[in-house]
Amino acid sequence: MGSLPLPDFLSKRLFSSTPQKKSLNINNINQNVVHAQYAVRGELAIKSEQYRAQLAKGEGKDLPFDSVISANIGNPQQLDQKPLTFFRQVASLLENPELLEHEQILLDKLGYKSDVVERARRLLKDVKSVGAYSQSQGAPGIRQSVADFIERRDGYSSDPANIYLCAGASSGVNALMNVICSTPQTGVLVPIPQYPLYSATLRLMNAHMVPYYLKEDANWATDVGGMRDALKEAQGKGIDVRAVVVINPGNPTGGSLKPEDINAVLELAAEEKLAVLADEVYQMNVFEGEFQSFKKGLRDLQKSEKNKDGKFDEMELASMHSISKGMVGECGHRGGYYEMVGFDPEVVAQIYKFVSIMLCAPVIGQCLVDCMVNPPRPNDPSYPLYKSEYDGIFNGLRQRADALYEAFSQMDGVSCQSPQGSMYLFPTITLPEKAVAAAKEEGKKPDEFYCLRLLDATGVCIVPGSGFGQKEGTLHFRTTFLAPGTEWVGRITKFHQEFMDQYR
Amino acid sequence: MGSLPLPDFLSKRLFSSTPQKKSLNINNINQNVVHAQYAVRGELAIKSEQYRAQLAKGEGKDLPFDSVISANIGNPQQLDQKPLTFFRQVASLLENPELLEHEQILLDKLGYKSDVVERARRLLKDVKSVGAYSQSQGAPGIRQSVADFIERRDGYSSDPANIYLCAGASSGVNALMNVICSTPQTGVLVPIPQYPLYSATLRLMNAHMVPYYLKEDANWATDVGGMRDALKEAQGKGIDVRAVVVINPGNPTGGSLKPEDINAVLELAAEEKLAVLADEVYQMNVFEGEFQSFKKGLRDLQKSEKNKDGKFDEMELASMHSISKGMVGECGHRGGYYEMVGFDPEVVAQIYKFVSIMLCAPVIGQCLVDCMVNPPRPNDPSYPLYKSEYDGIFNGLRQRADALYEAFSQMDGVSCQSPQGSMYLFPTITLPEKAVAAAKEEGKKPDEFYCLRLLDATGVCIVPGSGFGQKEGTLHFRTTFLAPGTEWVGRITKFHQEFMDQYR
Repeated sequence: MGSLPLPDFLSKRLFSSTPQKKSLNINNINQNVVHAQYAVRGELAIKSEQYRAQLAKGEGKDLPFDSVISANIGNPQQLDQKPLTFFRQVASLLENPELLEHEQILLDKLGYKSDVVERARRLLKDVKSVGAYSQSQGAPGIRQSVADFIERRDGYSSDPANIYLCAGASSGVNALMNVICSTPQTGVLVPIPQYPLYSATLRLMNAHMVPYYLKEDANWATDVGGMRDALKEAQGKGIDVRAVVVINPGNPTGGSLKPEDINAVLELAAEEKLAVLADEVYQMNVFEGEFQSFKKGLRDLQKSEKNKDGKFDEMELASMHSISKGMVGECGHRGGYYEMVGFDPEVVAQIYKFVSIMLCAPVIGQCLVDCMVNPPRPNDPSYPLYKSEYDGIFNGLRQRADALYEAFSQMDGVSCQSPQGSMYLFPTITLPEKAVAAAKEEGKKPDEFYCLRLLDATGVCIVPGSGFGQKEGTLHFRTTFLAPGTEWVGRITKFHQEFMDQYR
Repeated sequence: MGSLPLPDFLSKRLFSSTPQKKSLNINNINQNVVHAQYAVRGELAIKSEQYRAQLAKGEGKDLPFDSVISANIGNPQQLDQKPLTFFRQVASLLENPELLEHEQILLDKLGYKSDVVERARRLLKDVKSVGAYSQSQGAPGIRQSVADFIERRDGYSSDPANIYLCAGASSGVNALMNVICSTPQTGVLVPIPQYPLYSATLRLMNAHMVPYYLKEDANWATDVGGMRDALKEAQGKGIDVRAVVVINPGNPTGGSLKPEDINAVLELAAEEKLAVLADEVYQMNVFEGEFQSFKKGLRDLQKSEKNKDGKFDEMELASMHSISKGMVGECGHRGGYYEMVGFDPEVVAQIYKFVSIMLCAPVIGQCLVDCMVNPPRPNDPSYPLYKSEYDGIFNGLRQRADALYEAFSQMDGVSCQSPQGSMYLFPTITLPEKAVAAAKEEGKKPDEFYCLRLLDATGVCIVPGSGFGQKEGTLHFRTTFLAPGTEWVGRITKFHQEFMDQYR
């Protein structure tokens, strides 16, 4: 990257740069962009990439580590998670449909099964070519597959007309926020800690993030009392709070909500007339209990005694899912969907127009959504391999989560909730006063300072809690448990002990 | 699509809908979205899809046509343009790298060539897995390929650090506009007629589109005098005009700018300190003369006598390209790039952050960008087939463009510039007064009325000129020349004659 020498005109410009000669400078461009923050890919991530590049070139002999561990980004396949064979075999046939003319070779020599071939043929019928635009909302046949999946999952019907295929959940969040946020007074309730896509998008829209705190000591569950307080406080300031974001299973927390927590959030939203945005991209990554969707919670409530006054009938719920996470881990393909129920049809028409302007989600990603929501089933030829790959990834994640949790439990000044779901742990760290002072001296937040020192000492890259938000006076970091093996967990333990000894 | 019966709660809600019970309604959501227009995928497109679905189900026996011709959207592979074999063979190996373990079968039995295998291996080294996130800006090796391509094309160096891979040019435009537009007074010069992505994006950003008219009678060339007038007029109204968009070759016009036109635009931009956004996604579709990039124009000027006062040194230019158009036609894969030169590094850092929030462009799309900028060359094993496919598509486009042009030239009340490039023609139509009155009676614009009547009578879907902007008092439509065969051209001719006869 950047290995070409700087062309003359560029190096010349570096020395003669006078911003006022240009149309655009840091002071006159969109200040909502300037003030947006996105720590997951910030300074630490960039520094870790520099270390990685150094090591790759054989230039890192002086570094105190021989590999970089990217525990900062939920990027499974970068960390050696093997793609699910069924998905990629289907994708290969979609990319090169001429292979379908050699079905016998595929089956006899190349490890393809007949259900792979069938799926590819069906999807090609749906989309014609993965190189063609689909309908703006996504290919109809694939939206039907998603609706069928939701029906099987929840036991309630789902209408493909309500499904929007998108370029990963981020793109869905972007569309929804663009429509929801109309004035600088618009507010959206967002959990703290949160995945910073939400704070960044609200900042870009020049709207208010209204924070509500999750209960760390209750496995990061939602606290409806606290949500209501946050809402009332914001309303008192004249903020027009319209929606509430819930991330379940949690990012960065790793928590997994119980049905009663979900119901409580829905009741609050119904009473306060808030649209609910349920980020459920980690729904396959649940280690304790079973995942329950907000959609099922809503349908249950609509049928229940609690709905005798009809207060749940008009509720607006958008639920997001993605191929990026779980055992699929295909984030590079940018695929996902959201289902909208209860939205005013005129509002839906505007969301449709918004997504039309961006044309359509990547079609091969749409096809992988189809594979995710409709994977091989028992008795399908691809099932045994699919099942063993899926379980292998799931168990590997779980084992590494447990290993990390055990390590954190032993570490001085660290406490961590037990892993419940998603791909992250978000332990509290209590740092010695001297460390806090040393951070201040370098102009860093204490958790940033800690993470930078960890990276410099071990090559392990994690994200400081301040990138996600945390209660005043507390410090955390987020680590994924995606990186293979557990050797790197030992690097953290060793560093932590030395760090604590140094500043004690 | 929507074939499931409406669930109870939904049909119930349809009759009891009371918007005030909801959080979001058409009046309180983002009015910039509400007021944005995007005709290319509007009423006509939706109606044509309904006709298509009717015919597919065998329900269209009463329709006066037996197929729908989507001449409204530049969607080559939906219209039977065959993907380039080299691209798709590479993509199939990227999706299923296990195929690389069977190289001999690929080569002997499945029509793959050794350069396909080599390209796939190289790209897998660059991206590790197409299912993993790349760097936010795009995979370094692919950005290097893009920079090498630009150097070969222009004869001037290009730095991969200045290249941003994006999900089609639309996504690049979106990022740039988000950074450029900072206040409701921000303005951007946009050609009329224009591709409505620009008007829609500026509307979404609550900024001003400052229209400048292209010279229809000079093959839709730019008119710097007119641009300057438009600029001064806008400035007189207090609009802070910061950038100028140029689409070359033109969409919807099909024009192709001469080097002197490009220079004139650059000179105006330098004098007025405007950033230039050059939409060059049709650079492979040039039928007359040779494509010249704005980047080459700028570098030429920087070296020339005209730069003795250094006025071109600080110029900001962003140039966009895409895999969606040309002979590649892979719009469903959402791939493209933009190169930024001359931008203030602090501004670039903000663009980088903005694209980081959206994570990265689809990685398989990035890999197809690599294939586009670095296709098989003479003596490569895949070259003969690549060349014959490429030339076949190019010549087919050209033939159909000529056939359409000939047909338009014969039609009463239609005049059309000769096809120069891109994938469109944009003829003027002069409609009888009675037709204009009939349109008014139906509450339609006359060109809309004409296009709707054409669709209803022939199944041919085109886009009215009002969707792109046109000089007051003139009427146009845009048609692609992608649809196979020329039978449908005859449908237009026949309809037009009948329409004119009816309203004469």
